[in-house]
Amino acid sequence: MNFSERLQAVRAEMARLDLAAFLVPRSDEHLGEYVPPSAERLAWLTGFTGSAGLAIVLREKAAVFSDGRYVLQLADQTDGTLWERLHITDEPPPKWLAGQVEDGARIGYDPWLMSEESLARYREAGLSLVAETQNPIDTVWADRPAAPLFPAVPHAEEYAGASSSEKRAQIAALLRAEKQDTAVLTDPASIAWLLNIRGTDVGFTPIALGFALIHADAGVELFMDPAKLPEAARAWLGNEVACAPRSALPAALGALSGKRVRVDTSGSSAWFSETLKAAGAKIVPGQDPCLVPKATKNAVEQAGARAAHQRDALALCRFLHWLRSAAGHETEMSASAQLEKFRAEGALFRGESFPAIAGAGEHGAIMHYRVTPETDRAINPNEVFLIDSGGQYLDGTTDVTRTIWTGPDTPPAEVRDRFTRVLKGHIAISTLVFPEKVAGVRLDAFARAALWQAGLDFDHGTGHGVGSFLSVHEGPVSISPYLRPATLAEGMVLSNEPGFYLNGAYGIRLENLVLVRRADFPGPKPFFRFETLTLAPFDRTLIDPALLTAEEASWLDTYHARVLNEVGPGAPADVHAWLKEVCQPIRELVA
Amino acid sequence: MNFSERLQAVRAEMARLDLAAFLVPRSDEHLGEYVPPSAERLAWLTGFTGSAGLAIVLREKAAVFSDGRYVLQLADQTDGTLWERLHITDEPPPKWLAGQVEDGARIGYDPWLMSEESLARYREAGLSLVAETQNPIDTVWADRPAAPLFPAVPHAEEYAGASSSEKRAQIAALLRAEKQDTAVLTDPASIAWLLNIRGTDVGFTPIALGFALIHADAGVELFMDPAKLPEAARAWLGNEVACAPRSALPAALGALSGKRVRVDTSGSSAWFSETLKAAGAKIVPGQDPCLVPKATKNAVEQAGARAAHQRDALALCRFLHWLRSAAGHETEMSASAQLEKFRAEGALFRGESFPAIAGAGEHGAIMHYRVTPETDRAINPNEVFLIDSGGQYLDGTTDVTRTIWTGPDTPPAEVRDRFTRVLKGHIAISTLVFPEKVAGVRLDAFARAALWQAGLDFDHGTGHGVGSFLSVHEGPVSISPYLRPATLAEGMVLSNEPGFYLNGAYGIRLENLVLVRRADFPGPKPFFRFETLTLAPFDRTLIDPALLTAEEASWLDTYHARVLNEVGPGAPADVHAWLKEVCQPIRELVA
Repeated sequence: MNFSERLQAVRAEMARLDLAAFLVPRSDEHLGEYVPPSAERLAWLTGFTGSAGLAIVLREKAAVFSDGRYVLQLADQTDGTLWERLHITDEPPPKWLAGQVEDGARIGYDPWLMSEESLARYREAGLSLVAETQNPIDTVWADRPAAPLFPAVPHAEEYAGASSSEKRAQIAALLRAEKQDTAVLTDPASIAWLLNIRGTDVGFTPIALGFALIHADAGVELFMDPAKLPEAARAWLGNEVACAPRSALPAALGALSGKRVRVDTSGSSAWFSETLKAAGAKIVPGQDPCLVPKATKNAVEQAGARAAHQRDALALCRFLHWLRSAAGHETEMSASAQLEKFRAEGALFRGESFPAIAGAGEHGAIMHYRVTPETDRAINPNEVFLIDSGGQYLDGTTDVTRTIWTGPDTPPAEVRDRFTRVLKGHIAISTLVFPEKVAGVRLDAFARAALWQAGLDFDHGTGHGVGSFLSVHEGPVSISPYLRPATLAEGMVLSNEPGFYLNGAYGIRLENLVLVRRADFPGPKPFFRFETLTLAPFDRTLIDPALLTAEEASWLDTYHARVLNEVGPGAPADVHAWLKEVCQPIRELVA
Repeated sequence: MNFSERLQAVRAEMARLDLAAFLVPRSDEHLGEYVPPSAERLAWLTGFTGSAGLAIVLREKAAVFSDGRYVLQLADQTDGTLWERLHITDEPPPKWLAGQVEDGARIGYDPWLMSEESLARYREAGLSLVAETQNPIDTVWADRPAAPLFPAVPHAEEYAGASSSEKRAQIAALLRAEKQDTAVLTDPASIAWLLNIRGTDVGFTPIALGFALIHADAGVELFMDPAKLPEAARAWLGNEVACAPRSALPAALGALSGKRVRVDTSGSSAWFSETLKAAGAKIVPGQDPCLVPKATKNAVEQAGARAAHQRDALALCRFLHWLRSAAGHETEMSASAQLEKFRAEGALFRGESFPAIAGAGEHGAIMHYRVTPETDRAINPNEVFLIDSGGQYLDGTTDVTRTIWTGPDTPPAEVRDRFTRVLKGHIAISTLVFPEKVAGVRLDAFARAALWQAGLDFDHGTGHGVGSFLSVHEGPVSISPYLRPATLAEGMVLSNEPGFYLNGAYGIRLENLVLVRRADFPGPKPFFRFETLTLAPFDRTLIDPALLTAEEASWLDTYHARVLNEVGPGAPADVHAWLKEVCQPIRELVA
């Protein structure tokens, strides 16, 4: 079936179900970022493969929504004669849909794929929602792949830093303090953290798909296909974790009648709230209780993050050195493959943490560009090349972006100006000191101020949380324009990645990961500062030193000295020599 | 009755009503900041006179809550043997109360004094609320003053810049666009803006107390005591505004059965939602529709704000010059009176915009200190003196804080360090450029970053909106740590007032008002910058020039040159001469 036929088939199914519209989010039952092929309904229907999006199919028209990162990709991958392409914040889907249908029109949704909170937005817009547990896409998607059944594997305590029983006790105490009997866990990353297990069900994030209930007595019920739990995994989980197939879930929720059950109404699919309500449980809305403990890395995880970043830095510096002579005979794909190869030579490497974004020239302006054989293009001389990539190591997850000028000529003044403003934003975040209880939204603008001064901006957040051999995009903390209440605390790892994008021309993004550390001041109020984990030089040919303050130049020189000292000695001689050259103090270069 | 007897009387009334607890907010029926004496229930009961607070009376204990601005005042004004004194954000009252009472305990509240949204917090905490339309305080408060009955007066179009019929058409169009039949207006400042009327019912904010309904056809029903509406006021309001006494309100809401009625569920008292629900109206939660148009000053109001600030600046500069020789023989009260006297000599002055905060030495650390004959103290040599004050002028509202060193010795290095860090924060806000759709919370930390670098902070917001001959604290926009969604737009007036407070020693606050102006850049995305309205020198003896960057020193010099040029020529000769001295470039002083 081509995309037009797919859309027609879904509409026929909608007609059978008497639906005026049907909502097709990108998410699976876990509402996570990476989903198995069996859950790629949005891509199957529309062609759009971005990590965030939603389609709304009406009888006579259809629209597909995504955010600023994917504007170009959305236009590129979807058929404009079938799909209206809209910006999800400029045109909120509930409001858009309310303008398309009559009062009382039946709007179908799959309760497994949307949260109670996202559905509330549609109800507030006056829409009448109808739950369809048999998803019309699944009905018509004939060659839909089977759900993955890869085994769950133990995640050793030498990397996790705490046993599962310690973690279960910690979460149970949290539930008791809030007078809750049980919490529903639907995020496989939370379950991976809680039970010290990992898996390979989806790309890039080492999780095993499943659901769980944790009770106030620290007991856990894990709902996962028995095929995914070989004897070793069951032994590792121990007696306090009862395992059952997913089909046992309705009965397990039914047994919670009368109990106070914590449900993450924005992070869990509405099916859970609806089933619990029907069972007579008292739902207490509350964030997934594992989110903050998981985001707050313990001392072992922090040491692991540093070690993983040291190995990642070596791969990265080798790659940047290799890239020096790539222009003219390498491509976006060959460069990405080379970087992965360097990473794979390091210890404990388990794969990329997300599909590398390697954008030469105008491809760099596509914020979440993913190179394919069809789009692959040469890395040419005298252009901007952006590469955003990361690795999964048993002891930590990395994510780093560098933007380089391929040379041999000097870059245009405008590109240097933009690059330097992005760098100023990056340094502003790196050097912040801030007290406890600060939400990321309060820090985000420091990454933008130098761009704003020139009437420029970038349309993505400044930073996201990063897991420990887990999701490269990890909640609940971020540094972004969104008014999210989660606050930064000691031990959290975040990205610091301001950018600038000129459509059709080039993209710039400068990304390091940072660890939140306690700052030492005499007062009683805790203050924090960031420790930069990522170690790789910034391309000095793109820096306009005249735009840097003395403090900014000093930060850069100190950082480059650290790169040279920590990466250089372990690098091949030619890479070490090159690092000596590119890590020179910028102030001397100016003079 | 003393405070102990008052508390006992309220408890007796609570016993009669079978209440385990009763909530006593500071607000009146309009949920505004300034309330008439008849509504000062919190002050009557507890002694606490701050502008924000809440008491909770239980049978055996009682607590009074306020925020960081009032920590010291709360401790000072209330009896610790009767009242537990708590910080309202550290100890959220619903959570605190839930820890005090049994499940199902009857918690009384007055539906006229609390919003639906604030009540929701108590319900979410599992508390059982009981509406008491006969407030127990009113029952036992024998000598409670009568409600004010001052007349509403016209506010001329030469100051308002738009006629009431234009404004009503604007709001009606907004209601029709959102398919609403009627909006409930309970904020007298919104009604003052909409109908171009002012009044003198409460101190400092020139409003006439009343309620209104505005319909989608632009018709208005105004509920205000007839004694407040003399013939001239009725003629000014015209035929499209129907006037009725407050007693007509229940019937008017009853007539809205089946209509879509917009109610500000956080800004209006719950009585409105409850009455409308009972009448069968369809409530559409939505912000008071006048808030954003009122905050967005038109060209006439912007010109008025500049003119009012010019006159205010003359009074302020005369006062700061006078203050030079005040140490040793003036007091906080005499200084406040002198400043008001200078202001009153300017044209169009109608009174102070709030009670001046004049804090010498340790009193400066009490953020919202209000001097009384009992607390008045001399302004001594060699100490820090803070004065925060403002004027209501027919063409604009002002609010300004300066902090000076009384001399004659040079100030301690620590005080200069703190002052200079506060000044750096003030300059950081002043020089920001930012795009459209930016909420104030995204800018707040720029005012703090220089303090944070030293492990310091201040416990209040950086800025609040300011009205046009209206509330000195005007919503919906602010620059503060709170995650409020309102975004800054051209024409809004805000304060820029970072501070630093050392309990028992001194307080520093530096406040100018700023106007949001369009910044001129080629791109399609609108950007804004601030125009500073307030004109008065900062005390150079408190500045450590070594802590300023070249850009900061340059901003300060440019600002001081503007003060000298715009205020000097119209000032008395001795004031002009003094301005020449204190407005000298800081960089020359350093060299």
